[in-house]
Amino acid sequence: MRDWAYCFWWQDSSLAASDRRAVAWHTVAMTSNDQTLIPQTMQPKWNADGLLPAIAQDARTGEVLMMAWMNEEALRLTLSENRTVYWSRSRKSLWRKGETSGNVQELVDVRLDCDGDTLLLKVHQVGEGACHTGRRHCFFYEPKDKQWVFGASACD
Amino acid sequence: MRDWAYCFWWQDSSLAASDRRAVAWHTVAMTSNDQTLIPQTMQPKWNADGLLPAIAQDARTGEVLMMAWMNEEALRLTLSENRTVYWSRSRKSLWRKGETSGNVQELVDVRLDCDGDTLLLKVHQVGEGACHTGRRHCFFYEPKDKQWVFGASACD
Repeated sequence: MRDWAYCFWWQDSSLAASDRRAVAWHTVAMTSNDQTLIPQTMQPKWNADGLLPAIAQDARTGEVLMMAWMNEEALRLTLSENRTVYWSRSRKSLWRKGETSGNVQELVDVRLDCDGDTLLLKVHQVGEGACHTGRRHCFFYEPKDKQWVFGASACD
Repeated sequence: MRDWAYCFWWQDSSLAASDRRAVAWHTVAMTSNDQTLIPQTMQPKWNADGLLPAIAQDARTGEVLMMAWMNEEALRLTLSENRTVYWSRSRKSLWRKGETSGNVQELVDVRLDCDGDTLLLKVHQVGEGACHTGRRHCFFYEPKDKQWVFGASACD
């Protein structure tokens, strides 16, 4: 059973935040027999290198644009500057997306996943695209005859 | 400049495959002065643990459902069985998504990204959802007051 009651109460803005939280906890407890009890808060679980994978999705079209990595500072700057800032593993430095190309990603929304080890960023992609090749997105190799070949989706 | 000519020719099905490839190479060469020359094939670049991150996206709605990991065998099985098979890092074993829950992900499409280190899977999500909590997707913690809290998107 899904915890629809929980969702209903959480979104009921006529309740004060503290009441919503109390009701929510109660409702989760009431429905926890047949579902996983969900922690109310989550901490990012940085990997051994202090990084998390961050998926950038076009907030308007839903296209998955790219995947990159963030350390704690990159995430903090992304949230404070409202634009994506990644950690470049090859250059070992912060990387403000679009700093040189102009193809900035303005932050629309950000979510952490159920086990705290992946970020999903909804963004407004400025300019031609997210990919360093100038394409709209990075996912353009298709499996064909046991190879990954440059495909039609590269033209998206 | 984008290589629109390349895309045009590639998609022109009146040409034989070998001609399309020849024209495409020529066109890329013609337009490579002001853009990155793109390799025509790509190999998966497995990380030090022999894994790649794999993003599962709902093929119909565009929702990003989850992110998990694949090793070479998981990817091979995903392609041959037309359903997602991941590598569970915690259990250190292959994990046929939905094997116990029934929430199978039927494979619709798969792409490798521009530098070969991330997979994007378009899937048809069977059952309630992709998340082990029974939710549609895994991305339901929102940043609020310097915490990540269970949010309204959990009700998607």
